[in-house]
Amino acid sequence: VRWAENAASIDLLDQTLLPVTERRILLTTADEVIEAISSLRVRGAPAIGIAGAMGLVTAMAGFAGLPRERFHALLAETADRIVAARPTAVNLAWAVRRTRAAGETAASNDAVIERMRVEATRILDEDRAMCRAIGEHAVILLAPESRVLTQCNAGALATGGIGTALAPIYIAHERGERVRVFAPETRPLLQGSRLTAWELERAGIDVTLLPDSAAGALMANGEVDLVIVGADRIAANGDVANKIGTYSLAVLAAAHNIPFYVAAPTSTLDPATASGASIPIEIRAADEVRRGFGAFTSPPDVPVFAPAFDITPGRFVTAIITERGILRPPYEGAIARLVETSESERQRVAR
Amino acid sequence: VRWAENAASIDLLDQTLLPVTERRILLTTADEVIEAISSLRVRGAPAIGIAGAMGLVTAMAGFAGLPRERFHALLAETADRIVAARPTAVNLAWAVRRTRAAGETAASNDAVIERMRVEATRILDEDRAMCRAIGEHAVILLAPESRVLTQCNAGALATGGIGTALAPIYIAHERGERVRVFAPETRPLLQGSRLTAWELERAGIDVTLLPDSAAGALMANGEVDLVIVGADRIAANGDVANKIGTYSLAVLAAAHNIPFYVAAPTSTLDPATASGASIPIEIRAADEVRRGFGAFTSPPDVPVFAPAFDITPGRFVTAIITERGILRPPYEGAIARLVETSESERQRVAR
Repeated sequence: VRWAENAASIDLLDQTLLPVTERRILLTTADEVIEAISSLRVRGAPAIGIAGAMGLVTAMAGFAGLPRERFHALLAETADRIVAARPTAVNLAWAVRRTRAAGETAASNDAVIERMRVEATRILDEDRAMCRAIGEHAVILLAPESRVLTQCNAGALATGGIGTALAPIYIAHERGERVRVFAPETRPLLQGSRLTAWELERAGIDVTLLPDSAAGALMANGEVDLVIVGADRIAANGDVANKIGTYSLAVLAAAHNIPFYVAAPTSTLDPATASGASIPIEIRAADEVRRGFGAFTSPPDVPVFAPAFDITPGRFVTAIITERGILRPPYEGAIARLVETSESERQRVAR
Repeated sequence: VRWAENAASIDLLDQTLLPVTERRILLTTADEVIEAISSLRVRGAPAIGIAGAMGLVTAMAGFAGLPRERFHALLAETADRIVAARPTAVNLAWAVRRTRAAGETAASNDAVIERMRVEATRILDEDRAMCRAIGEHAVILLAPESRVLTQCNAGALATGGIGTALAPIYIAHERGERVRVFAPETRPLLQGSRLTAWELERAGIDVTLLPDSAAGALMANGEVDLVIVGADRIAANGDVANKIGTYSLAVLAAAHNIPFYVAAPTSTLDPATASGASIPIEIRAADEVRRGFGAFTSPPDVPVFAPAFDITPGRFVTAIITERGILRPPYEGAIARLVETSESERQRVAR
């Protein structure tokens, strides 16, 4: 995700076409940005936060000539519409609201847009640094030749930097250490095979693909040393919303005494949500399962259980790795304190 | 699976084309039968046993004119080749060997073929009765409105009758009882979506499809009352080889206190195999995962972990339902005794 045309548009890789086609697209209007987020052209909690923030700027830039009151009403409405594009990841709401807040007190419409542009750029830059910091903290969890199981894609394609769950892998690889990644294909949209396998292979990192259903057998064979996944939202008690299948991996990891780590920026922590039970779970279209590959692979009208995410209770999470360090259970107080400190520090730096 | 053309060929539904196309194919030669079994045109442990037995007959019928010695050498070789088409399910070896043994002492080549034809037909007929008997035993496990999770397809399409894991569902439905089935799609070849959803929907039974990775979330939501799966081989100690993903479901079921049942004919019990560790696990072609739907859904050369089956330790199995009754742990002695009794009874009936 990057600025294009002097920050008048967003330039991003259309992830729905990978691994067959690498095509970059330009987004400007709110409708374009919302379509790209909800159809997963851009996905991954940090990346949709960045795209949402930048999208608020490019969308509003077209309306600088409106009367101030009309402009601000439209700004509020556009921010709400972008936030609603995907409900589960808290980063989207966080980044859009932060961007909007940055422009709030500016004197003119142009100044609002300019301040929001600075803020969205800051979110992008911070995200890059955040990925690296997560990787630096998490890399100590990798022994030499570690075999890491992940889920979906929490890599470079999901962020502005080197990813969250995959960040320690990239850093170990940079240091010349051997590390091996197992990537479940992650049905229905196959972000594991289409994205994780693709980006790791490109980086020269040893990656093996598996059907989601084979993770248990892989663990039983003794081939997994640790699990690292990303997160779309982490509740106050450490419950983690992440791509469907994450919870199954957590239960399997516990049954095999394999540590289960979650890597995510502090913007994914949501102390306002008490537990996973209050996290809204997005339900995807049934046809993503019934005919995700063109032809029907099931009866065309069969009902489908197709949540995009599941909740992994905090008790299954060995540690949460953020850009500000590693949290261990009990998560309750630790998450609240971390968010409070990061927020006040950010405001201090901004002043 | 049925005889065609006066038992000179096998007539079967090509399951690789479902649910889009219903096409029946005729098989006669050993090569045709082996191709159909290894490419999963016919699949499911009982059904490949039947197809293998019938295939031995149709293949050898073309060689009745050979000298006796040459005929018997070819018979041995053909039986071995058919058995090797898929290594994990023990039913295939069991049915082919039983068919061959039936002809062994016959005076002429024609008489060998005739006796084998009678035996293969008997295996088919027994399979039909076996399915119904499994269903009758298993149906008591279903409370009114039970919600059953299965895996892959252990239904009518996998057997000569009403299936194994799905047999109690069909019987409950015949009796006018409501039952609801959850069918994981079962990557890579999607026998859950293509076959289980298709055959249950046709039968008017309430079926919901889910990605394999969503089974944990479904259980956590409290939507599963019991799990029933089939088996490709059951070792002396109760360890179960079944479609990849079965083990994950067993671990998840245990974590949610959900009973986990295996439904299989006694021909699936293999007391000669001490434990799951000695069961050969078939590895499928990597491209079934990398490009199972035509286009590449991953980098074209990425390594893949693609076992067709996994092993569920007997300690996860609440009960094994056979056509001769329900086995409960400890399985060690129970399995040996059951196989011994069924074998001696079969021989008594045959005399």
